[in-house]
Amino acid sequence: MEIKYHPIGTIHSPFKDIAGMPIQPSGASGVRGTVEIRPELAAGLKDLEGFSHIILLYHFHQVREARLEVVPFMDVEMRGVFATRAPKRPNPLGLSVVRLVGITGNILEIENVDVLDGTPLLDIKPYVPEFDQPTEVRVGWLERAKGRVRRQRSDERFR
Amino acid sequence: MEIKYHPIGTIHSPFKDIAGMPIQPSGASGVRGTVEIRPELAAGLKDLEGFSHIILLYHFHQVREARLEVVPFMDVEMRGVFATRAPKRPNPLGLSVVRLVGITGNILEIENVDVLDGTPLLDIKPYVPEFDQPTEVRVGWLERAKGRVRRQRSDERFR
Repeated sequence: MEIKYHPIGTIHSPFKDIAGMPIQPSGASGVRGTVEIRPELAAGLKDLEGFSHIILLYHFHQVREARLEVVPFMDVEMRGVFATRAPKRPNPLGLSVVRLVGITGNILEIENVDVLDGTPLLDIKPYVPEFDQPTEVRVGWLERAKGRVRRQRSDERFR
Repeated sequence: MEIKYHPIGTIHSPFKDIAGMPIQPSGASGVRGTVEIRPELAAGLKDLEGFSHIILLYHFHQVREARLEVVPFMDVEMRGVFATRAPKRPNPLGLSVVRLVGITGNILEIENVDVLDGTPLLDIKPYVPEFDQPTEVRVGWLERAKGRVRRQRSDERFR
């Protein structure tokens, strides 16, 4: 079974290279970017401005291969790729929760952007705590890395 | 630009029909399901069991058309589709945060499943509050609907 998607737009950010980037929105605090939606889809943005945060689903377009085990940026051990947020996944789908600053026509201004410039966007969803915030959460191998994500930067490993 | 994905597995749930389902994991509290990962990808599940919650990204396989404005289950007004979680989206990608009960080989047991039985799974990510939980969140048109999601069920509108 093959599933075909077409980008709904493009994410623009200050990050032109896959190395040296923040690895999550929490490490990209205050970093501004824009999302350009295809003009013919702009009607789908109605009512979005009432939401302070949005979920971006995008395609890691610079990924050329999948790996089943990776050494994530936050660790020194091999981990199963589905237990990480690394880009070299069987389907290279990325997910970031960013702050929505404003919308003008088909352009969204966003903040806390940890995404490579030129990334094809597949979907936008409103972030809703009642849907998206479970309680009593355990984070496995990341437990030890808590608090480090804000200063951790990417390197060459997923080029 | 066309992006091609292949399912990494299948989501199994008690929900055989698109109508009458819970509309979000918070409305599916305690509902059990399983995720069957393609055996050749099972190595990617290593270390996942340490996480209490996972993000499922899946393909709304019963959706045959996109709409730019929809009347969501939680409302009576037309909303831009990107300001809703409705399935009839330009790229019919679904996202649910579910509780991970356990993993045996290539089978995940999950809880709080709001997904149709037989749904093709595209990706699994660990849920990490530090990455995925912004603070000071506003939820636009959904503000009025707070608390109703637990009892709201789907109907025929997105068939």
